[in-house]
Amino acid sequence: MGARSDAKPKMVQAAKQLMRERGYHATAFSDVLTLSGAPRGSVYFHFPDGKTQLATAAAEAHAHEQVEIIDRAAEGADSPADLVERYVDLGRDGMVASDYSRGCAIAPLVIEGATRESAEIGETGRRTFTEMIDRLAFHFITLGVDQAAARSLADAVIAGVEGAMITSRARHSPAPYDAVKAGLTAYAASLSRPRRPAK
Amino acid sequence: MGARSDAKPKMVQAAKQLMRERGYHATAFSDVLTLSGAPRGSVYFHFPDGKTQLATAAAEAHAHEQVEIIDRAAEGADSPADLVERYVDLGRDGMVASDYSRGCAIAPLVIEGATRESAEIGETGRRTFTEMIDRLAFHFITLGVDQAAARSLADAVIAGVEGAMITSRARHSPAPYDAVKAGLTAYAASLSRPRRPAK
Repeated sequence: MGARSDAKPKMVQAAKQLMRERGYHATAFSDVLTLSGAPRGSVYFHFPDGKTQLATAAAEAHAHEQVEIIDRAAEGADSPADLVERYVDLGRDGMVASDYSRGCAIAPLVIEGATRESAEIGETGRRTFTEMIDRLAFHFITLGVDQAAARSLADAVIAGVEGAMITSRARHSPAPYDAVKAGLTAYAASLSRPRRPAK
Repeated sequence: MGARSDAKPKMVQAAKQLMRERGYHATAFSDVLTLSGAPRGSVYFHFPDGKTQLATAAAEAHAHEQVEIIDRAAEGADSPADLVERYVDLGRDGMVASDYSRGCAIAPLVIEGATRESAEIGETGRRTFTEMIDRLAFHFITLGVDQAAARSLADAVIAGVEGAMITSRARHSPAPYDAVKAGLTAYAASLSRPRRPAK
């Protein structure tokens, strides 16, 4: 039953990919089954609450992946501006590699009104974006930015990258990422203060 | 036949509003007819090419409205940073006034994959965002920013506002607008150079 046991994560990954490419309404369970290779019975077995449950899991998986990308960007970063640059570049690389076909898995839930129609999806939308912003803010604080400024910078970076995903896809160009990077690295550099030496 | 003659613009406005609230796939012709009060025959009379044609017109109407908002913001702006602040604030005001229910009418076409499936919608997505960015860049140049920097700043502002629309709606908070404003006004201020005096 090995194939059965990993059907759920495979379906979540497939749903995430399809939502990134074509949004929420156009992602049907049948497409998720085809892409994941999961048996048909997996739908009711693993997602008894239906598409809301699958979309929620896909949005959470996307946010967890973004948090990992934020951590990876932070590992080598030696300043807030450097972290902004690394994170935006990772997003840019992914966009170019997908030939401008993949955006955010959470954004469709907002844009297609699902966060408003379903309290569960609404809560997921709020929580997943907050997780990403909180993690980025945490790293900015570690790199010496004041708490309020770190939160604002993280908020601006996540918004900038979310928007760049849209205008970059529309224009088949990485220019929006480069523009967001130029703007927000400059802002991040202005927020940096020297670390206090240990007493 | 007065009612007939303004059915088309009413339908375009209704489609724009619904796409801003619930995206592309969830906006049915029947909903557009109900909201606009247009007679049923208007669909085939004014939009013989179907939903693609209606969505294209709605996206164009949204871009024209944004260009007008950009012009209004530029009217009173005395510096690039001031223009960024005014434009972001107008977006923030609209978002709060809609109780976080209305985003961009172009973004759904990208996020739901329509820009990839239809060459006509794809071209509309590219052109409408470019129009908005070009107009903003034009005003930054008028306010003394170099051409390349003006283009980059405009690109960053449009991306930031597009992204803020999403995370602001998800979180029911205007904070992303304030963050984008703080980040990009700082950047805009750094790009300003004193106007050369007339010889």
